[in-house]
Amino acid sequence: MSDTITLGTYLFERLHQQPIGLKSIFGVPGDFNLVLLDKIEEVDGLKWKGNANELNAAYSADGYSRVKGGLTNDSKSGGNGYAALVTTFGVGELSALNGVAGAYAEHVGLLHIVGVPSIDSQAKQLLLHHTLGNGDFNVFQRMSSAISHSTVMLKDKDTATADIDKCIVESFINQRPSYLAFPTNLVDVKVPRSLLDTPLNVEVPKNDETQEEEVIERVLEMIAKAENPTILIDACCGRHNATIEAKKLIDLTKFKFALTPMAKGSKYIDETHPQYLGVYVGTLSYPNVKEAVEKSDLIISLGAMLSDFNTGSFSYSYETKNVIEFHSDYTKIKSAQYPNVRMKEVLNNLISHKDLTSLVEKYQTPKITKDPFPSTKTSGEITQQFLWTEVNNFFKEGDVIITETGTSSFGIIQSKYPKNALGISQVLWGSIGYSVGALFGAVTAAEEFDPDRRVMLFVGDGSLQLTVQEISSMARDGKKPYIFVLNNDGYTIERLIHGEESVYNDIQPWDHQQLLSTFKADNFESIRVDTAEDLTKLFKDADFNKHDKIRLVEIMLGKMDAPVNLVEQAKLSAKTNSG
Amino acid sequence: MSDTITLGTYLFERLHQQPIGLKSIFGVPGDFNLVLLDKIEEVDGLKWKGNANELNAAYSADGYSRVKGGLTNDSKSGGNGYAALVTTFGVGELSALNGVAGAYAEHVGLLHIVGVPSIDSQAKQLLLHHTLGNGDFNVFQRMSSAISHSTVMLKDKDTATADIDKCIVESFINQRPSYLAFPTNLVDVKVPRSLLDTPLNVEVPKNDETQEEEVIERVLEMIAKAENPTILIDACCGRHNATIEAKKLIDLTKFKFALTPMAKGSKYIDETHPQYLGVYVGTLSYPNVKEAVEKSDLIISLGAMLSDFNTGSFSYSYETKNVIEFHSDYTKIKSAQYPNVRMKEVLNNLISHKDLTSLVEKYQTPKITKDPFPSTKTSGEITQQFLWTEVNNFFKEGDVIITETGTSSFGIIQSKYPKNALGISQVLWGSIGYSVGALFGAVTAAEEFDPDRRVMLFVGDGSLQLTVQEISSMARDGKKPYIFVLNNDGYTIERLIHGEESVYNDIQPWDHQQLLSTFKADNFESIRVDTAEDLTKLFKDADFNKHDKIRLVEIMLGKMDAPVNLVEQAKLSAKTNSG
Repeated sequence: MSDTITLGTYLFERLHQQPIGLKSIFGVPGDFNLVLLDKIEEVDGLKWKGNANELNAAYSADGYSRVKGGLTNDSKSGGNGYAALVTTFGVGELSALNGVAGAYAEHVGLLHIVGVPSIDSQAKQLLLHHTLGNGDFNVFQRMSSAISHSTVMLKDKDTATADIDKCIVESFINQRPSYLAFPTNLVDVKVPRSLLDTPLNVEVPKNDETQEEEVIERVLEMIAKAENPTILIDACCGRHNATIEAKKLIDLTKFKFALTPMAKGSKYIDETHPQYLGVYVGTLSYPNVKEAVEKSDLIISLGAMLSDFNTGSFSYSYETKNVIEFHSDYTKIKSAQYPNVRMKEVLNNLISHKDLTSLVEKYQTPKITKDPFPSTKTSGEITQQFLWTEVNNFFKEGDVIITETGTSSFGIIQSKYPKNALGISQVLWGSIGYSVGALFGAVTAAEEFDPDRRVMLFVGDGSLQLTVQEISSMARDGKKPYIFVLNNDGYTIERLIHGEESVYNDIQPWDHQQLLSTFKADNFESIRVDTAEDLTKLFKDADFNKHDKIRLVEIMLGKMDAPVNLVEQAKLSAKTNSG
Repeated sequence: MSDTITLGTYLFERLHQQPIGLKSIFGVPGDFNLVLLDKIEEVDGLKWKGNANELNAAYSADGYSRVKGGLTNDSKSGGNGYAALVTTFGVGELSALNGVAGAYAEHVGLLHIVGVPSIDSQAKQLLLHHTLGNGDFNVFQRMSSAISHSTVMLKDKDTATADIDKCIVESFINQRPSYLAFPTNLVDVKVPRSLLDTPLNVEVPKNDETQEEEVIERVLEMIAKAENPTILIDACCGRHNATIEAKKLIDLTKFKFALTPMAKGSKYIDETHPQYLGVYVGTLSYPNVKEAVEKSDLIISLGAMLSDFNTGSFSYSYETKNVIEFHSDYTKIKSAQYPNVRMKEVLNNLISHKDLTSLVEKYQTPKITKDPFPSTKTSGEITQQFLWTEVNNFFKEGDVIITETGTSSFGIIQSKYPKNALGISQVLWGSIGYSVGALFGAVTAAEEFDPDRRVMLFVGDGSLQLTVQEISSMARDGKKPYIFVLNNDGYTIERLIHGEESVYNDIQPWDHQQLLSTFKADNFESIRVDTAEDLTKLFKDADFNKHDKIRLVEIMLGKMDAPVNLVEQAKLSAKTNSG
């Protein structure tokens, strides 16, 4: 084996090597990244997964990152999610921005690698294609910097390996996208292979000891005084790999706990747990959950991400002022902020604190009131209320469940996830079409890290139209997801917010039953379900339950039928918009 | 009629009113733009054309703008192209950026209207969905500013109408995109209707008289000395509405003229003209064109846009130093720059100058050598060489011809456009997938401004996959374009540049014959053509020649077969990339 490798190969070796551990790279070829793409196949165990377009590539990387984080072991930082996509200069990278911005907003770690013209072409300011025609080669990097943790344009071969390492490590630790521009002329530059012998150091910086001691002391004091505490788990807890600590805290203290919509389906968090209350989403919560959370005298919030759709338009109304917030990069106790006390480490030290066990001895497993609104329907037209109850009979342990912004992401809140379920939903960023691209990434990661997992998507007919071609990539790779298309004849979520009768919320109806054959899937099933009885039957069917082929299930629903919580959210949103 | 109208209606009235004259608005609904979209139907003669996604919306607006510019009368500024698209805050607008950047690079006038949260929500820095979760509501405007002539966020109701006017006028005159962020709470603010009585003033600023006189004097001197002059027309000549002056100059002087690839199919420019040489693209030109241009002793260049693919990788090699360049915003004579002498006005004054006629009396209509490489094939497999010759038998007067980056945009250079043909190709920006979105805009504009025009697209199977869903919008609206899908089993242009055998240039094959029925087109025809004889027959078929339904014609081609000029360009590109 040669003592040197190319810089291009170095990049992909780093991404494949532990602790990053990628097995797939997403993206779209373009003439400024072709030479770089050649290097992927030089890395044993790493595969190119071409996407149908760049936006979908970003969504796929996002889905891959979330599932990788959800399915890999919780070694030191190995439980973090990560992914990479490669696009080409200008045209390719700009098409991906919306997807990358979503990863930024929702704390998803990934690397956006862009193949760019050679340093020499840049210096000469050539009017190359894919430029704006003004000789500015940095403009796209500047645009990406607004939605990236860090951006770098490789320039100098002597510092390039260090630049690559830093870019990966920072976005991995902070669970945000970073941007790496790779000029064509640097791809084949030789660097020492021995650099790979030292793995990347992705340890989160240690907490400030004095501050952490103070935090733990105050937390213990508040627990000692509390009589009715609640733990509220939000999305950043899972994204920053602290759900294992959350679970230990729950088990140890016997405190009841709730999830936000964005935290539903977090690793290690079990909705069948006896202390689980349900989903807390402010005024849109079920009354039992709302009351249990809001009447608490201590709220321990883990990884909060307080967006409107995640909080019922900011309608939290705790009765207590005793709120402790643990975040990925700081802690807040009532009004006091502790900037260098990070969630994962402080939780670990809290759990193992000698005083905690005796303090919580008084708590017993709480009695939880059941969800009040199960569907009683058994036949006739399918309603959203029926669908999101009935789907519980289909879910099984370990399912990866993806829901699109719209009726799906609101409806799914009504359902109860089985043990080890992994949930994906882009509630904060809320870009429609996200879920179809994310599904390709998710099903790819699931196959790599735990092939027994079933992966399923719930997407509306409107959202599907934005990114439908990514089904073709899954067909090509022989993936076996379930794609439930909720056909309600247009943009129902928008109709609820505004413009029920407006032509702009209508879409061209498609023949969904033809999609899988148009994309030439090899082994597939297309099903259309019109009635409640048929859906019940389908969900119980043993063959249907085996994920042995790609399936598209079209579920016919009423045009204005929607989950109750979405109807309420829509009213709140309409109010904010006009405010 | 009320004395006031809403600010939202005001915006759309301005866009519909002359001199802007839009009849369609493109885009995708989203909760921050719904109230604004209601105002479109209040404007008589203006229609909402929903797209399948935002990138396609930007492409459609670009195509609409180019066709509107190509098909409307050359009144004072009425010959300029223009279009508008509406997206929603964050998620929607970022998806459109690549399309807007293409319009910026290629001088296409359009307005990107973004529905954004209310001023009140912005002031409170609410963590709304579609934000990055950091309270920064200006970040997306900053990103757009890099690819826009101007950007504005409406804030103050007293200045809002003036802000809107300025935003439209500047982008219309400069033929670049502008960005207008419209907060939800300002949509229903009332403004005086009488403001509409004064039409927008879109007159290009007058040239500096002294400078212009000097320019004309020097140009006349150079013409007097020249014996073998050539006029070279490039894309900005058409985009800035100066092709009518170019045509007059050609007719008056009897100078021979050539086009660049990007200028092929410009309004008023006729390839059947006896003085027409052919397409000049540096070393990649046909030898007769190359020699005729490069041996000239005076080059009059109109609206040059000198990108690599437009110039054979910058391989212009004029023998003379006598080059006059007219640009939309300056003139250059040899090395001297005249910053305030704009093309359209100076050409007008040059043409009407009393001395010009006598100076050019010595010129006679030149003898032009014919194109040297017609195809001699008549049967068997279809080759690119055959296709791009044979297509001349299908083209007819007034056709609107769109070609995608790849084999189509290179191949089309071999064909000869009929009278009044309008050509669209995104040669500088070169974003694959552009043409399918642009087709929807183009066919919409053609129907509005000249329904007799046939509109046709040539797109590769690879590029089609990026934006295929826009065919659905054409199906919904009953549009009747010809969609020629060049099926060569993947990314042939990339294979030629690099990676002939590489898996990343393969794509999932689709059943193209099913596409129109999957998108539920009402009245359609799907055809697959495998042989040269069949293509010849099809092009002659009288029924096929009538544009009375949407047609998808799949043309089967060899995987590595490509137009000769593309093969040569690919070699040059591979060299630049590694340089």
